[in-house]
Amino acid sequence: MTETLNRQILLVEKPAGKLGPEHFRLTQTAIPQPADGEVLLRVRCISLDAANRAWMHGATYRSAIETNSVMAGGALAEVVESRAPGLEPGDLVFGDTGWQDYAAVPAKHLVKLPRIEPLTYLLSVYGIAGLTAYFGLLKIGRPKAGETVVVSAAAGSVGSIVGQIAKIKDCRVVGIAGGTDKCHWLTSELGFDAAVDYKAGPVFKPLKAAAPNGIDVYFDNVGGDILEACLAQMNLFGRIACCGAISQYDGAPAAHGPRGVPGLIVVKRLTMQGFIVMDFDDQRAEALADLQTWVASGRLKVQEDIVNGLENTPQALVGLLAGENRGKRMVQL
Amino acid sequence: MTETLNRQILLVEKPAGKLGPEHFRLTQTAIPQPADGEVLLRVRCISLDAANRAWMHGATYRSAIETNSVMAGGALAEVVESRAPGLEPGDLVFGDTGWQDYAAVPAKHLVKLPRIEPLTYLLSVYGIAGLTAYFGLLKIGRPKAGETVVVSAAAGSVGSIVGQIAKIKDCRVVGIAGGTDKCHWLTSELGFDAAVDYKAGPVFKPLKAAAPNGIDVYFDNVGGDILEACLAQMNLFGRIACCGAISQYDGAPAAHGPRGVPGLIVVKRLTMQGFIVMDFDDQRAEALADLQTWVASGRLKVQEDIVNGLENTPQALVGLLAGENRGKRMVQL
Repeated sequence: MTETLNRQILLVEKPAGKLGPEHFRLTQTAIPQPADGEVLLRVRCISLDAANRAWMHGATYRSAIETNSVMAGGALAEVVESRAPGLEPGDLVFGDTGWQDYAAVPAKHLVKLPRIEPLTYLLSVYGIAGLTAYFGLLKIGRPKAGETVVVSAAAGSVGSIVGQIAKIKDCRVVGIAGGTDKCHWLTSELGFDAAVDYKAGPVFKPLKAAAPNGIDVYFDNVGGDILEACLAQMNLFGRIACCGAISQYDGAPAAHGPRGVPGLIVVKRLTMQGFIVMDFDDQRAEALADLQTWVASGRLKVQEDIVNGLENTPQALVGLLAGENRGKRMVQL
Repeated sequence: MTETLNRQILLVEKPAGKLGPEHFRLTQTAIPQPADGEVLLRVRCISLDAANRAWMHGATYRSAIETNSVMAGGALAEVVESRAPGLEPGDLVFGDTGWQDYAAVPAKHLVKLPRIEPLTYLLSVYGIAGLTAYFGLLKIGRPKAGETVVVSAAAGSVGSIVGQIAKIKDCRVVGIAGGTDKCHWLTSELGFDAAVDYKAGPVFKPLKAAAPNGIDVYFDNVGGDILEACLAQMNLFGRIACCGAISQYDGAPAAHGPRGVPGLIVVKRLTMQGFIVMDFDDQRAEALADLQTWVASGRLKVQEDIVNGLENTPQALVGLLAGENRGKRMVQL
């Protein structure tokens, strides 16, 4: 190793309202020494996800992030030095390294990855985004051919894949996204049947026009008003795959949930089901095989949004929460 | 037939707020003549259900009730005259006769029932209440032995059976009901492990004390604040069987849904699923066999609340919505 210093980005303050770059600080420290059972990793590519922001609110499916510690985050990394069996220098892994150049991490918390090209696909279509889309749509949403699938945050890393898989499964697909450019991209490039621009006004009416036969599967990334509008348009026995609640992450927690819960759930016999990608670890191989087949055939297009430089990670997350990315955003180091 | 007049109770006005006897009117008309394919029924016992009130809001799983027509409602009735194959005078049926002495109903809308004693069991434990409890708990809630099951409106027709079936399935059972008498009845007579009195104050803390290991299955009859409190105490992969939303029926529609939707659903990977009893028509025989076995062995106690006289039906429904009944309320004619 020629470098001797480890740049780190600390979360110095938990935001009360919107997240900004001022909540982070870049610092330098010595490169850590791996303990027994650990490996030293050189971080190559940090995954940015709306969930990073949700972690600041408190314990979720992981413990809460503490202030004045390295900001947590999953990344693609290379083993530099190993004190654990099964991992060798040069191996590629995914794990929660945090936002830094180097990290010493217990080997048992890492997933060893194959070397494929481009490597970034391991963070997008073959990473958490692609697997979340795959499992959430197919195992929770369970769309049948001919049904109408609606997905929110449709131009994001997960949503853009959800919509394309739903098309592969012969569904009518409606994406909800922010701005005419994103909406146009969904229909012209990704094959969505229709797109609704939530920044142009309330979605209820345009959604009704875009999904005239009602909604059978709603893949919910956002919660809030858009969930409420979809609930009202669900068909009998419809399924709502609850993946995230982006609308609730960056600011004060919502005072209330959507109208229609539980009344519409009863009357329409809906199922709302939450999931996270780790729940399906035992089915990864099958999912990756399908995703690779679709990517190879050109039926599934991969959209990535790559930012360069560790120092730009805070602004990249702030921008993601404002919806400025298209497809999977990540930071290359 | 010695009688020549048919007493009917009309819904003369849809309530804007709480339902009262003034929204109904007793009238008399000629006993109807059954048309081809219909039977003339003598109504014996009218089922009262919170859902009767929900029907007034608009179309649900059935069309909305219209004003100045006979109030809709399911009842146990006897065939007086038949113009349909398969039904004979003296046969016992269940169907939506409405609140009246006599009704002419298409035979295809009726379910023929066995003659058992007491006949009222056909409206309680072997009727919609018992079957709703059975299917909702076992097919939607899917409790495992040792899990904690919470049920609201626990002293009502459905809730009192839900809790007892959950005990038969070796769960820890907590009932939420209104008033110390009902709560005491649940634990001392029906074998519930604990009961929470929602009229004594917010349920969050007493519920936490009654379900110290969290909630695995919540059978929701009420929606609103109690659903919100339960959502916050659900365990990972918990199931919420959405059966009704009594808290929302008698008054203006709720302005908002419960907090935690969809955030807690995602984080805890909960399933909220709505159902109505008709969805399980193909499994009735199995359900009735189980229920009969449990009743015969004394493990399932049947509680009925029988009001006499058609003219008392409006007040009986008003009282049910105020929670004055214990077990299944019905009106005997």
